[in-house]
Amino acid sequence: MPKPPRERIVFSAAQLIRTQGVSGTGMRDVVSHAGAPRGSLQHYFPGGKEQLVNEAVAWAGGYAARRIRRAVDAMDEPTPGGLFAAMIAQWRDELTAEQFTKGCPLVAAAVDTAAVSEGVRDAVSEAFTGWRRPAVAALREMGVPPARSESLALLMISALEGAIVLARAHRDTAPLDAVLAELRPLLDAAVER
Amino acid sequence: MPKPPRERIVFSAAQLIRTQGVSGTGMRDVVSHAGAPRGSLQHYFPGGKEQLVNEAVAWAGGYAARRIRRAVDAMDEPTPGGLFAAMIAQWRDELTAEQFTKGCPLVAAAVDTAAVSEGVRDAVSEAFTGWRRPAVAALREMGVPPARSESLALLMISALEGAIVLARAHRDTAPLDAVLAELRPLLDAAVER
Repeated sequence: MPKPPRERIVFSAAQLIRTQGVSGTGMRDVVSHAGAPRGSLQHYFPGGKEQLVNEAVAWAGGYAARRIRRAVDAMDEPTPGGLFAAMIAQWRDELTAEQFTKGCPLVAAAVDTAAVSEGVRDAVSEAFTGWRRPAVAALREMGVPPARSESLALLMISALEGAIVLARAHRDTAPLDAVLAELRPLLDAAVER
Repeated sequence: MPKPPRERIVFSAAQLIRTQGVSGTGMRDVVSHAGAPRGSLQHYFPGGKEQLVNEAVAWAGGYAARRIRRAVDAMDEPTPGGLFAAMIAQWRDELTAEQFTKGCPLVAAAVDTAAVSEGVRDAVSEAFTGWRRPAVAALREMGVPPARSESLALLMISALEGAIVLARAHRDTAPLDAVLAELRPLLDAAVER
């Protein structure tokens, strides 16, 4: 089912930001990628590029959160290590399929825009929080104590994001495999019951 | 001692890339930040922006590698957890001092340029390798087996880089503290003698 034009534009913005960052993504590129008429930008996004970037970032955060919940639902016996393995596998597949051209739009927006746009920084902060929340909830349900659920969710997202950057730079999934191999036992050992 | 103009330009490029990414950094901004005459760019960097970015990335990789060696030298009894604590502390201090405006130039260059410039991607890949090498060597000297020295160095750099991005987004050093608290025991337990 084709997406309505507004959603298509937000999705296209996220895809371009993943590849070339916020500064490198022009509004014209987004319209052309979305196959949308140029006037639709002004119509749907009267707040201009910042509004569009913020919506793309919010979309990406929501997508990441849904993927956490879906990964947990797909496991017969959910474990912290199994959840992290699923997060890593999704990115390994995607980086390989896209020849390492597309990274995480949250990282892209944080690194080239956080210092110059308070609005985008806020949007990225909320998106990371929205992604972390279902991970923390899942870890707690698996029997990880509350305080460690918070710090382990921060570790999972930090290590994944850093490994994605390294994998893109090296065009090699080895960093993803290394962080999974090292963290899986640590994550599973955090279950208390 | 003031830096010679060529070094000043490379340093300025790295500082601007840390704040606003590669795409967001114009050659004019670099010249003005370095207090260099505009003609000096053409003189020192006939390869244009790509040459300058590649040199800034190489400088950053060399700087990170030197900081690893200095951190190891500064420890009476070097331990893997102590090395990671030093890496985290350097970034915690810097992010706090700069109000979270400056991140890692290698991440900035990887996320907005890796997909569009093979030359910059290569430079970032080499810089990450140059940073990892002294970390791997230090872990081996501390008694970590060779294979785990590789994967733990990848984990340390990945977790640090991801935590820097999260810290910038949230304007909060909590992600750095969380990854250190979680990884320190894991790192120290990898020592075999």
